[in-house]
Amino acid sequence: MSHKKYNSTVPTGRIEALVDGIFAIAMTILVLTLVVPDVAGPLSNGAVENALYAILPGFYTLVMSFLLLALFWTLQHRIFHRIKQVDTIMLWINLVWLLFIVLVPFFASLTAKYAQFPISHLLSNLNMLGIAVFLYLNWYYASKRELIHEKVDNNEIASIRGDILIFIVITLSAIALSFVIPAWSGLVYILIFPLEFIAHNL
Amino acid sequence: MSHKKYNSTVPTGRIEALVDGIFAIAMTILVLTLVVPDVAGPLSNGAVENALYAILPGFYTLVMSFLLLALFWTLQHRIFHRIKQVDTIMLWINLVWLLFIVLVPFFASLTAKYAQFPISHLLSNLNMLGIAVFLYLNWYYASKRELIHEKVDNNEIASIRGDILIFIVITLSAIALSFVIPAWSGLVYILIFPLEFIAHNL
Amino acid sequence: MSHKKYNSTVPTGRIEALVDGIFAIAMTILVLTLVVPDVAGPLSNGAVENALYAILPGFYTLVMSFLLLALFWTLQHRIFHRIKQVDTIMLWINLVWLLFIVLVPFFASLTAKYAQFPISHLLSNLNMLGIAVFLYLNWYYASKRELIHEKVDNNEIASIRGDILIFIVITLSAIALSFVIPAWSGLVYILIFPLEFIAHNL
Amino acid sequence: MSHKKYNSTVPTGRIEALVDGIFAIAMTILVLTLVVPDVAGPLSNGAVENALYAILPGFYTLVMSFLLLALFWTLQHRIFHRIKQVDTIMLWINLVWLLFIVLVPFFASLTAKYAQFPISHLLSNLNMLGIAVFLYLNWYYASKRELIHEKVDNNEIASIRGDILIFIVITLSAIALSFVIPAWSGLVYILIFPLEFIAHNL
Repeated sequence: MSHKKYNSTVPTGRIEALVDGIFAIAMTILVLTLVVPDVAGPLSNGAVENALYAILPGFYTLVMSFLLLALFWTLQHRIFHRIKQVDTIMLWINLVWLLFIVLVPFFASLTAKYAQFPISHLLSNLNMLGIAVFLYLNWYYASKRELIHEKVDNNEIASIRGDILIFIVITLSAIALSFVIPAWSGLVYILIFPLEFIAHNL
Repeated sequence: MSHKKYNSTVPTGRIEALVDGIFAIAMTILVLTLVVPDVAGPLSNGAVENALYAILPGFYTLVMSFLLLALFWTLQHRIFHRIKQVDTIMLWINLVWLLFIVLVPFFASLTAKYAQFPISHLLSNLNMLGIAVFLYLNWYYASKRELIHEKVDNNEIASIRGDILIFIVITLSAIALSFVIPAWSGLVYILIFPLEFIAHNL
Repeated sequence: MSHKKYNSTVPTGRIEALVDGIFAIAMTILVLTLVVPDVAGPLSNGAVENALYAILPGFYTLVMSFLLLALFWTLQHRIFHRIKQVDTIMLWINLVWLLFIVLVPFFASLTAKYAQFPISHLLSNLNMLGIAVFLYLNWYYASKRELIHEKVDNNEIASIRGDILIFIVITLSAIALSFVIPAWSGLVYILIFPLEFIAHNL
Repeated sequence: MSHKKYNSTVPTGRIEALVDGIFAIAMTILVLTLVVPDVAGPLSNGAVENALYAILPGFYTLVMSFLLLALFWTLQHRIFHRIKQVDTIMLWINLVWLLFIVLVPFFASLTAKYAQFPISHLLSNLNMLGIAVFLYLNWYYASKRELIHEKVDNNEIASIRGDILIFIVITLSAIALSFVIPAWSGLVYILIFPLEFIAHNL
């Protein structure tokens, strides 16, 4: 029994089912990182309001993490929509990529809890870099091994590669900013949305 | 590579998989908002019973949130069943809509914990308004951009729009009631079920 | 727009996706009801072992709840495999049924925490009765409204009804036993497996 | 109504949906076993860093558990891809197998919390043995009952059986090592990846 023969046995459909499931869960359990705050002192409407203000940074992290996960999901989809088959190596590139994805809620908790320190943002941004790099590997490997549908032309391949490179550059900027303005380094991710839009309309 | 070409690349099937996954999880983790209560004082059957009475408001919130999520799911389904394709903008309308959906368990916890204060109900009802408005946007955008199947007639389009408008009006009433009778403002959502039924049988 | 026309718009496929999703999550988050115990006093291998003995009742509840959920899933599947279409009422019978399903992990926690008191077992068994009754309603309604595939004969319809009735009788016995031997009332569910087997081989 | 007739009524598609769902959730909630640590003493960047070092063993367990779950998922897939139908017994072999799968996050928590004691590693490794044995049973039963597609030849059947046997041998080694070097017994699982690779290229 050769290795090659097994390679072609994982249909893209079931990988997509696992990917969609993991994204659905990761995006939903992000909300568990947002704990209803306890109120110190006597209970009142104002006291609850103040307690809620205190979790606003965690709320921002939740919203940003959710939107980034949504973006990664669309990028992964865009790749798999153009893949005709998956071999063992590409399967494991995707599985390791999912490991970085499931860590997103943990790093969202970490940066929400220790927002003022570089270390939490640095680690969180490194995790984002892992996501970006494995997404790149995914597409790079698929194009090298001719796993992409024949009807996908070179322009389209380059365009997707470009989108992932934009994302890598942004995560690298976020890592650099972790040391300078830790609490705000995550804001750089907002740039992804206009940059991707511009890239598609050049 | 033009923007248009990418627009048509997200098949409705995978969006539905993500939507179904997120709803399944949000509807299930609602139960995590219902914590088995600790008993103060000596343990006895009666003491456990009393502790359970104390979590009845949380139980009501859970049941109501579950049924509302179930209703939103059926509404989203009714829309997607009539969509022939999805472009990037409609994809993101749905993804942002899912962000409001995953926040439902958080607001269920919040209103269960601080049931007596307007602020928790106001925020929870505003989140419901977000769900209602993005559902409306979804259908409105689909009909403007001709993303709806040709066989769906104008009566049907208007009927679905009407159902979503009923839901918007109810969330607006709940927001108004948040200030007057906070703890009971959520009861207004019960009206959705008979109103939708009447609307379909006029 | 008549009510009837909407009735037929929910294909069984998407309901199955929601059902499979909710079961997958409820069956998996059962494990969250099993908390790694803290050790009182000095840490040692024996102390950890003793702490683990203390969570054995919770472990039994987890295993039993998991197997029952697995059984309900197979029963729901057996029904839906024979359904040709779903109307609004049958859709909501299933959605309310799912509400009882998501409550299973809560009642598993409750009975694990207060195993010695009738009230926790009574409520847990009432929830099981809800699951059984709505399963019965599901099949009863489908057969009354001719939503079942024509090729399914009357013997098969009666056989499935019989399986659900066995389950109802067992939940009623568990409810009665809640008052007599609360901590052991759940054991009666073990009977489901041989009884279903015998029923199929008469 | 005979038992046989029901046997063939569970299509592999819906079992795969449940399996994919449970794996997606188990792989994602592993991250919940990794709690953002509290910092003892005054907060500082270095203090947060030290607190994070303390959860490194838990992080290793998370990564290893994730990769093993990913591997089990690919093995289950490889089996089901070659199955033409499932009877009641094979259905329940898979459902009980899923029970061992959902316990993985619990044992990941246990070994992370009590890493220095044999008992936590022993139980965790016994759970892995359960996974391995039920995977073997699954394939063994399928081949005995002729549930495998005719086009799958005997070499392929033996090759998959061999892969599962490698996994059984490794879990047995891990159980033995639990008594000798508890904290490191889990490292033996790393051998799975090169061994499976070698086995496929002999």
